[in-house]
Amino acid sequence: MSHNAGKLFVISGPSGTGKGTICAELLKDIGNEFSVSMTTRSPREGEVHGREYFFVSREEFLDNVEKGNFLEHATVFDNFYGTPKDMVLKRLEKGRNVILDIDVQGGLQVKQAMPEAVLIFILPPSLTELRKRLEGRKTEEPEIIEKRLSKALNEIRFIGEYDYYIVNDDVDTAVANARGIIMAETSRVPDKVRPIIRKYEQEKGE
Amino acid sequence: MSHNAGKLFVISGPSGTGKGTICAELLKDIGNEFSVSMTTRSPREGEVHGREYFFVSREEFLDNVEKGNFLEHATVFDNFYGTPKDMVLKRLEKGRNVILDIDVQGGLQVKQAMPEAVLIFILPPSLTELRKRLEGRKTEEPEIIEKRLSKALNEIRFIGEYDYYIVNDDVDTAVANARGIIMAETSRVPDKVRPIIRKYEQEKGE
Repeated sequence: MSHNAGKLFVISGPSGTGKGTICAELLKDIGNEFSVSMTTRSPREGEVHGREYFFVSREEFLDNVEKGNFLEHATVFDNFYGTPKDMVLKRLEKGRNVILDIDVQGGLQVKQAMPEAVLIFILPPSLTELRKRLEGRKTEEPEIIEKRLSKALNEIRFIGEYDYYIVNDDVDTAVANARGIIMAETSRVPDKVRPIIRKYEQEKGE
Repeated sequence: MSHNAGKLFVISGPSGTGKGTICAELLKDIGNEFSVSMTTRSPREGEVHGREYFFVSREEFLDNVEKGNFLEHATVFDNFYGTPKDMVLKRLEKGRNVILDIDVQGGLQVKQAMPEAVLIFILPPSLTELRKRLEGRKTEEPEIIEKRLSKALNEIRFIGEYDYYIVNDDVDTAVANARGIIMAETSRVPDKVRPIIRKYEQEKGE
């Protein structure tokens, strides 16, 4: 039921809210695609250039930053990561929706570069529940968990910049909710309605 | 997943597009309610005042029009019909969504009275298909069908005033699409985000 051109959806939310799982589910749907990011980190075993990432030198990356080729970019552990604009636009033009799983800072960058992007914020049911999920991973030290909770709260403070929010207390419901948002956004009456009306007028011979 | 107060949804579309069926399905969902209209026509057998309609005199109806008590009102075959504003507002305050099945003229009146109303337009796949459906009813004379098709086209010309549109070529898909729109609209980040943020801050003791 997608009538319009594709739309760009940004899914953000604190670490542990399950946005990765939600994105993975959405990407199973026909018409939804992700976008391959560019990075300066080295490829891990099995990773293919152009599939997991575009692996480039720092020089090449910074050249792209300067040229304004990224919708958003960030530094993580001394490595650069960015979302190339042209890759996203190409997919949108083909009528595909693009789903970006990025953090709040990145989401705000995308909104600035493309105000028509649709920003969805995934919230944990509570910080207590988020703590439980992070502790459940059993890979993180208590002080790291505290840091993550503080970071989560700082991210939640940006919710006003987002278009939609989903409280992920049940992943199936959260995915259904995200699908509903995508469905709604692709059912919006466009600014230019003439082509729609024209179709019916022509049938009527008017 | 309805986080906010209830929302008002107007479902419009030419006769024969199946908007009645779609509304009936939506009203089965928890949280969605219809609103009882006011009318000057006489009750039919089995109809109960306050259930099917509020049956009132022309005098009482016109008094309500004058007082601006209707979200929309119209005349059909010498009888008046109207949607009382207070009935809708009461439901919205309780967090219920209100679904109104009204024609395009009514939809535009509602939007003027309540700009926050969400207007959904149901389109037929084509006028040829709409003609087939109207002919299938076997109750209508050919010239009535022609009139309905012309009226349909005139209504479609107002699509630009609507927020969303759904092409009803399969009723299950159309209902799913309408549900998606309702889900999305109830997941919108509200203008005032403080209460959301506050909840998490309090947990964190901040």
